[in-house]
Amino acid sequence: AEVSRERAGPAKLLLLGYLSYVVAGWIALSLGVSQAKPLSALDTLFTAVSAVSTTGLTTIDTGSSYTFTGQVFVCLLIQLGGIGYMTCSSFLFLSFRDRLNATQEKTARTAYSLPDSITPALFIRSVVLFTLGCEILGALALYPILKAGGEAQPVWSAVFHSVSAFCTAGFSLRSDSFAPYVADVPLNLTLAALSILGAMGFIVVTDIVRRFIGKTRHFGFTTKVIAQMTATLLVAGTLLIFLGEGSIAGMPAWERLLAAFFQAMSASTTVGFNTINVGGVSNATLVVLLLLMFVGASPAGTGGGLKTTSFAALIGLVRSTLKGRSSVRFAKREVPPAQLQAATTSLACYCGALTIAVFLLGLSEPAARFDAIVFEAVSAIGTVGLSMGLTTGLSAIGKLILVALMIVGRLGVLTFGLATAVPDETEEEEADNELAV
Amino acid sequence: AEVSRERAGPAKLLLLGYLSYVVAGWIALSLGVSQAKPLSALDTLFTAVSAVSTTGLTTIDTGSSYTFTGQVFVCLLIQLGGIGYMTCSSFLFLSFRDRLNATQEKTARTAYSLPDSITPALFIRSVVLFTLGCEILGALALYPILKAGGEAQPVWSAVFHSVSAFCTAGFSLRSDSFAPYVADVPLNLTLAALSILGAMGFIVVTDIVRRFIGKTRHFGFTTKVIAQMTATLLVAGTLLIFLGEGSIAGMPAWERLLAAFFQAMSASTTVGFNTINVGGVSNATLVVLLLLMFVGASPAGTGGGLKTTSFAALIGLVRSTLKGRSSVRFAKREVPPAQLQAATTSLACYCGALTIAVFLLGLSEPAARFDAIVFEAVSAIGTVGLSMGLTTGLSAIGKLILVALMIVGRLGVLTFGLATAVPDETEEEEADNELAV
Ligand SMILES: [K+]
Ligand SMILES: [K+]
Repeated sequence: AEVSRERAGPAKLLLLGYLSYVVAGWIALSLGVSQAKPLSALDTLFTAVSAVSTTGLTTIDTGSSYTFTGQVFVCLLIQLGGIGYMTCSSFLFLSFRDRLNATQEKTARTAYSLPDSITPALFIRSVVLFTLGCEILGALALYPILKAGGEAQPVWSAVFHSVSAFCTAGFSLRSDSFAPYVADVPLNLTLAALSILGAMGFIVVTDIVRRFIGKTRHFGFTTKVIAQMTATLLVAGTLLIFLGEGSIAGMPAWERLLAAFFQAMSASTTVGFNTINVGGVSNATLVVLLLLMFVGASPAGTGGGLKTTSFAALIGLVRSTLKGRSSVRFAKREVPPAQLQAATTSLACYCGALTIAVFLLGLSEPAARFDAIVFEAVSAIGTVGLSMGLTTGLSAIGKLILVALMIVGRLGVLTFGLATAVPDETEEEEADNELAV
Repeated sequence: AEVSRERAGPAKLLLLGYLSYVVAGWIALSLGVSQAKPLSALDTLFTAVSAVSTTGLTTIDTGSSYTFTGQVFVCLLIQLGGIGYMTCSSFLFLSFRDRLNATQEKTARTAYSLPDSITPALFIRSVVLFTLGCEILGALALYPILKAGGEAQPVWSAVFHSVSAFCTAGFSLRSDSFAPYVADVPLNLTLAALSILGAMGFIVVTDIVRRFIGKTRHFGFTTKVIAQMTATLLVAGTLLIFLGEGSIAGMPAWERLLAAFFQAMSASTTVGFNTINVGGVSNATLVVLLLLMFVGASPAGTGGGLKTTSFAALIGLVRSTLKGRSSVRFAKREVPPAQLQAATTSLACYCGALTIAVFLLGLSEPAARFDAIVFEAVSAIGTVGLSMGLTTGLSAIGKLILVALMIVGRLGVLTFGLATAVPDETEEEEADNELAV
């Protein structure tokens, strides 16, 4: 019982924090100075939610609909959403005090599922410094590429896309994402590096920092699981798309491999950029992309989805049941029962939320194809932002359904459930519960 | 550890039993006397597997492809598959001896997840007598309806469809299932009654029998959960299809309600008959049918799917996690950890098996629509037999994928996993495992 009572409070704080960012962003994007042409209130809300949740789905073209000022707001919202409102506010707080107060610490632990060995203060300092460092290096690497590619404002484009990649937001100032750059090795690898670093998450980063400064000699279990799962998903996804996707079969082998890798990376890290037309892929590739988006990135990172660690716990559960173990293990380590319960509950909640969302989208978008609806829903709840082309043609109700999915997806279905759940146990049930224990 | 070591042996027996039935059926349907026209070996294998697994998917029309003799073989395979090879052989055995031997008893408990309060001998007697009783009554009820409907052989048609309904097989001698009978109340209700009785399962039936003969005054917990879940799924499914499906919106209200109920019942019980064109339904209705087929029928019944009890355990898991209980409960009773582990493992295995199957079908059927593939895979693993029209046009590899799905679906993904899993623990792992305990 302690697990969720400890978590429900911070979960509510997280939800409120995100919602306040969304409202602030909505207001900023509604200002005349932000808009290059008149935009509806629903479209600016959609942009704000998509940016704060680092999803990247867009009902309107970001580059041509917003002025430079508006684009700066979008970039700030992405940055705030990516690092998390908690980290930012805690960092400011740390300038004055050395330790977080108890509530802030609990919020931090809820948001990032921190192992006990890492202190929040160290964690947050590492996060912010590492984020800024990566984004600056990324912008420096992107600038000459985008300049050579003929972008109108290469400096701003480099900064915007570096932030968008590291925060796995996938927002692009280009209306075709990066289709013309499908064979550009430096651009693909720079975006991939930024996205993978963001998606592997801050636990891994902090672990690396701790090892560099000599505080530990070994990587933690979580870090090892994240590294193993991320590599497995990227390699398997790349190979399956490389071998099975007909629309890239005509490319030279290396270009085809790069395109397959970039699309698998884009789905798995939940960054959501694309160099190939996702709306035109085969059903087999669709399944690969859906699975990668569903599993998603790693905890305490900028990406979404069920999370690689939950997926590992589920693999451990299946293998342990088949082998007849009552304790569930992964990589020879026991998965704690509380984490296993979180993973199985997450799976059930994700499946449930997706079923409801696809049903409602089926009603609100009667002319849409089933695969496009499923893809859109998985993309939104996984905060991925890839689309088969449905987003721009959505009805108003469809847009609101996606807004809800993006918020739920960013907070994590489970955290969202804890935040909104009313403890409705009657006294009788409570007594019954205590007897059972 | 005892759980699966006790179950792996019986699970292997179950798998071998089903496979021997499939081989016997394949041979019987390959005989010249069975075939009304030359049939390929793959199509007769498909029919045998579909009949033994009580799925009802067909690559060829049953009524016109097989002679009366062939149709009798199909009916026998359905009956054997429905009651289960274990029940039949045990019943024969009981004619000579009064008690099952230890291996048979374990097999019975594995196949039907029996509560401890019900003895296998009583269980099997009840099953066979109840099955024959229901099927005879069903045939008597169907005969006048089918005769009035102008069927060529009303007696045989009544017997065949009664068996096919109670065993939730959904095989039909009519090429259009029951589309012309969409507004025929007696036919719809007779088929529904047979299917629901079969799908609610033998635990419920035995419980009712025990109450009638005065051995107990209360229904068991499993019986209550099955009754509650079955009713909820049927009512919710009927309402959602009634309100949301455009293709039946033009019908008179009562006819529309009957059509919605019949299709929801067909998916939920996994019988798989249809009175409306499943290939033409809206995306919203598609989601409802997919969910009902995925959840499926109840344990120890003739139907397939994840099972209503597993679904109840998952609902209990989500609610318990949100309310902060570490013990998982449903309907105020604690779900035993072993059953919860089975339910969550089943969910993970089903999702995994479906993902792999849809991916492979995407490769083997490059021209098929995504929704048709997903529907076909869910229908096959749930042993439902509804189709959006893909089955008859499947490639040879596609047929083999469905054959595998139907066998896996009939045995239950988990039982199948236990049957085929090789205990591959190294000595080191074994030692590690013992330390952990
Ligand atoms: K994204
Ligand atoms: K069936």
